[in-house]
Amino acid sequence: MYKQETLTIETAGRGVYDLTQRVQDVVAASGISVGMCHLLIRHTSASLMISENADAAVMHDLESFMSRQVPDGDPMFTHTQEGPDDMSAHVRSILTQVDLNLPITDGSCALGTWQGIYLWEHRLAPHTRSVVITLHGDS
Amino acid sequence: MYKQETLTIETAGRGVYDLTQRVQDVVAASGISVGMCHLLIRHTSASLMISENADAAVMHDLESFMSRQVPDGDPMFTHTQEGPDDMSAHVRSILTQVDLNLPITDGSCALGTWQGIYLWEHRLAPHTRSVVITLHGDS
Amino acid sequence: MYKQETLTIETAGRGVYDLTQRVQDVVAASGISVGMCHLLIRHTSASLMISENADAAVMHDLESFMSRQVPDGDPMFTHTQEGPDDMSAHVRSILTQVDLNLPITDGSCALGTWQGIYLWEHRLAPHTRSVVITLHGDS
Repeated sequence: MYKQETLTIETAGRGVYDLTQRVQDVVAASGISVGMCHLLIRHTSASLMISENADAAVMHDLESFMSRQVPDGDPMFTHTQEGPDDMSAHVRSILTQVDLNLPITDGSCALGTWQGIYLWEHRLAPHTRSVVITLHGDS
Repeated sequence: MYKQETLTIETAGRGVYDLTQRVQDVVAASGISVGMCHLLIRHTSASLMISENADAAVMHDLESFMSRQVPDGDPMFTHTQEGPDDMSAHVRSILTQVDLNLPITDGSCALGTWQGIYLWEHRLAPHTRSVVITLHGDS
Repeated sequence: MYKQETLTIETAGRGVYDLTQRVQDVVAASGISVGMCHLLIRHTSASLMISENADAAVMHDLESFMSRQVPDGDPMFTHTQEGPDDMSAHVRSILTQVDLNLPITDGSCALGTWQGIYLWEHRLAPHTRSVVITLHGDS
């Protein structure tokens, strides 16, 4: 049994957006008891990640780290048509991930206690992002 | 056919732990001939990775690189409740991966000659880690 | 329905190689309408990535960034048997990915408009690389 749908996420610009509940709702509605839930973000300047879900300071520190590691407007970058956050957003995307695969157990994503599913918007301006969810498994 | 089980790994603190044989044993016992083997580590301060399996110096150098790139106790970090290796462990996890998907061919994971499956413990202290294995395919 | 085959790619040394069309051809030939397409590169010194497909400057800048981040011949590295690009290639592989999972929708990989599938060769010399493709889904 394969099921597919697309989530649309309106971001307010750079930052992380919690998708956990929306994904769990799709899994619950699918009727799949054991199987896999796959997510692909169909963009090259935003990421998907599994991260700690309890302390907002983690997201703050991830952003600080990545901003230092991949500075906007780095003079090394030549792909700058869309501004100083254009190429840095591509690099951030490559250093993280655009697809995630999660096991389904007893009808929900088998995340650890402290794991949440996040979209990481790397562009400064708001964007409309689409995430394809594909579910397969046994009911 | 979907099969799922959980491996428990007792780590002795920061370092890499070879899971290759344990994963191959689970695949062999499943009776699946062609399909997929998926691993999720249910934590945000440890990773899964595919790495070179022949020379211990590779793991030593990976650790050196990551320690320089993501220093414990970086003054930038604000999420420090559990000590100087708390936030650095989360960043290391984000820069690597918490899930891996591997093809099954002729009843075993179709790794390359030099590829092994490793758990990378990022916390300094020993931890109990759980990895969910989901297998699906044709027998 | 599970189908598997292996692509062989002859690289000309460090750089990116577009696999998008070859992968899409395999998906189209499979007769799968909705499902998953998984790729594993069976090496520890080359990666797979989803990246921007329109402007060659993106690949140029990714290479510049990675060369600065993970310098060949870094005096920290001890695994140097095969030369100054030996250990750096392993680190580059760990910071990116060796497996990708992509949804199949209406008989092709459901990539975003600007997403392409690339092999990133991290060794300086030409290499023969093998990528296992596993497809599963409903026809």
